[in-house]
Amino acid sequence: MQTVLITGFEPFDGERINPSWEVVKRLHDMELGRVHIVARQLPCVFHHALETLEAAIAETQPRLILAVGQAGGRAEISLERVAINVDDARIPDNQGQQPIDEPIVPGGPAAYFSLLPIKAIVEGLRDAGIPAAVSQTAGTFVCNHVMYGLLHHLQQKGNPRIRGGFIHIPYLPEQAARHPGSPSMAADTVLTALELAIAIALNTERDLQVGGGATH
Amino acid sequence: MQTVLITGFEPFDGERINPSWEVVKRLHDMELGRVHIVARQLPCVFHHALETLEAAIAETQPRLILAVGQAGGRAEISLERVAINVDDARIPDNQGQQPIDEPIVPGGPAAYFSLLPIKAIVEGLRDAGIPAAVSQTAGTFVCNHVMYGLLHHLQQKGNPRIRGGFIHIPYLPEQAARHPGSPSMAADTVLTALELAIAIALNTERDLQVGGGATH
Amino acid sequence: MQTVLITGFEPFDGERINPSWEVVKRLHDMELGRVHIVARQLPCVFHHALETLEAAIAETQPRLILAVGQAGGRAEISLERVAINVDDARIPDNQGQQPIDEPIVPGGPAAYFSLLPIKAIVEGLRDAGIPAAVSQTAGTFVCNHVMYGLLHHLQQKGNPRIRGGFIHIPYLPEQAARHPGSPSMAADTVLTALELAIAIALNTERDLQVGGGATH
Amino acid sequence: MQTVLITGFEPFDGERINPSWEVVKRLHDMELGRVHIVARQLPCVFHHALETLEAAIAETQPRLILAVGQAGGRAEISLERVAINVDDARIPDNQGQQPIDEPIVPGGPAAYFSLLPIKAIVEGLRDAGIPAAVSQTAGTFVCNHVMYGLLHHLQQKGNPRIRGGFIHIPYLPEQAARHPGSPSMAADTVLTALELAIAIALNTERDLQVGGGATH
Repeated sequence: MQTVLITGFEPFDGERINPSWEVVKRLHDMELGRVHIVARQLPCVFHHALETLEAAIAETQPRLILAVGQAGGRAEISLERVAINVDDARIPDNQGQQPIDEPIVPGGPAAYFSLLPIKAIVEGLRDAGIPAAVSQTAGTFVCNHVMYGLLHHLQQKGNPRIRGGFIHIPYLPEQAARHPGSPSMAADTVLTALELAIAIALNTERDLQVGGGATH
Repeated sequence: MQTVLITGFEPFDGERINPSWEVVKRLHDMELGRVHIVARQLPCVFHHALETLEAAIAETQPRLILAVGQAGGRAEISLERVAINVDDARIPDNQGQQPIDEPIVPGGPAAYFSLLPIKAIVEGLRDAGIPAAVSQTAGTFVCNHVMYGLLHHLQQKGNPRIRGGFIHIPYLPEQAARHPGSPSMAADTVLTALELAIAIALNTERDLQVGGGATH
Repeated sequence: MQTVLITGFEPFDGERINPSWEVVKRLHDMELGRVHIVARQLPCVFHHALETLEAAIAETQPRLILAVGQAGGRAEISLERVAINVDDARIPDNQGQQPIDEPIVPGGPAAYFSLLPIKAIVEGLRDAGIPAAVSQTAGTFVCNHVMYGLLHHLQQKGNPRIRGGFIHIPYLPEQAARHPGSPSMAADTVLTALELAIAIALNTERDLQVGGGATH
Repeated sequence: MQTVLITGFEPFDGERINPSWEVVKRLHDMELGRVHIVARQLPCVFHHALETLEAAIAETQPRLILAVGQAGGRAEISLERVAINVDDARIPDNQGQQPIDEPIVPGGPAAYFSLLPIKAIVEGLRDAGIPAAVSQTAGTFVCNHVMYGLLHHLQQKGNPRIRGGFIHIPYLPEQAARHPGSPSMAADTVLTALELAIAIALNTERDLQVGGGATH
């Protein structure tokens, strides 16, 4: 039986919960078809988050790694297309670090593209009635940091059969209730979305040739 | 046993469903504490919607009337503060009528304020973890038309113990999946919100003195 | 020669300037066709603003009164359709007053519609290449307060040939430079817009029958 | 005397004008301090735009290249941080090409970071009262294509003293007048912004260490 590693973050930016962990923890130890899901929480701390992730990869030897994070203010499940080699923190992380324009991996490539079939996942979610879209930026905070670090790690390991990527999710309704005007998504909807994303990622050899771009 | 009348609309603007009816119909014939809920669908047609509503009021003799409608693009449950005496239709209604700057009730007052305890409902929903806000405009289409007509009808009847008002709700996720970028709210969340709104409306004598305004 | 009275506000909400006064003061003492323009500043203070406005009306005996205010976050010139009889202050005014759900005029009508040809002004501005729209709400702060009070005053005076209304304008660029993500409009563009609005208001007997509504 | 090459695009997406060319053409042949500015228009066509740009570079031997494009819907001058090696066209370009997930340069790096001092330019513009921000994505259409191609070209030439990058600008007011709700910026404001951007780019050795990031 193969393993899927899925990660969520601890709360940050004054929130009491992080929707990514609230949902991801419900997937822990589930079996989905022929795979076993392992869920882990990452600290919202530059570099320490990556050490935690890499230790979990070494331990669980997953075939697929899905990192999930909160995008407060977005209305949809966002399939991140690309991670860039820069930390530029608008707010401090959970240990007070606030790097500006520092490379995540000095000398590393400027960016990595997601190894997930992001178009197929967006189409599959929409077909299931779940709002989803390709996102052209994962930001420059710990989420982008983890996505870049994950893809760099996979590239270094050199096993092309291991896939990974990053998915941003909206606030939960209970968070948006304290941020007037903000969109949200119910935990059950996000849970279904993540199950579908895993299933599609495992069963899609080549991504769909459908549009998911932005004019700017 | 007293009756609460709650209404939703038929689909409009090219949608296959209307979230207001999808949720409201699930409340039909429910008993909530000491009240019996009757749900009715209104046509998305100027004037005809009001005739349908008034017939339902005559038939069911409700103590509370809650009219619910779709506000595609809004992220929260919106408690409408005021309805204005004008129809100005950006799109045609379901019978092709597209009035511009016509009074709903010729010679009627310029506006009516909601008879619901809108601040208490917003607070109650937020406390329950549901995004909600006071809205300063119900638009100028059939929703505002129904709210104005309902409040005019209640004012004409002159029974101060009968309350009524209007609540706008977001798209359902399955609708937002076809409107990229749009916020949505799960049907179960909206259902809980409407149950809470009914309970709070029935049990609040005087509305809370808390802010719900806008600078513009 | 007839007089047009145009008002702007003093700064509020922590701003160093108010774009309404920055632009309106440039119109003072101008002659536009056969009319003389008088510009006055209003304090951002409930009731005191109206006393100042009414004194200016008594002094200048204008044929047209245009009250202008800042709508930080809006992108267009907004022609307000309606003012409602309620003060609900999200922030304190410049004297620290923060009324909640108080009537502006106890016993007054719930609302007044603008006496300006708002559709004709929107069309005229767009034809001139200036972004403009009808707005269905002027909020519940001092701007709505002044619009309601102005229209109530005109209704009390009973001279149907005197017209008045309210126009909201965006931040100036120098304000938006300190509110990342906010739209703005150049002072020269706003100035042209106000001159056009005055000219159209003076020359339009009956407003255009064109749409300017909202579905919600 | 040194040369600065600045480019704007021809209109696309049904627009009659492109604000980038409307403003950029006004800079043609200007002298700014010790530099001479050359303005060129690029076609909104994948690859052909890059050929035009590279020919202009070969001809003018500029020390600084600033490519400017329209970002309809954005409110600020956007200093693009990064360009990615992918074309994913939401709409066809002006020759009907609509590539999906094709590399701009097959085998090229995943991304290039701007060679402009983007933080210093943002600070300088804001100090001058012009709304500006770092942007984390230039999209996946012809603008990103030109930014990527420009930076790839400069990297291939290997002259570290030649700098280049991309700036997105809002609609002009006359465009936003036909896109209700859209922000805009006056041509004069954009012109000043571009002059400042050139001056700052020429006079900044090391970019400022100030935040310009996004959490997502």
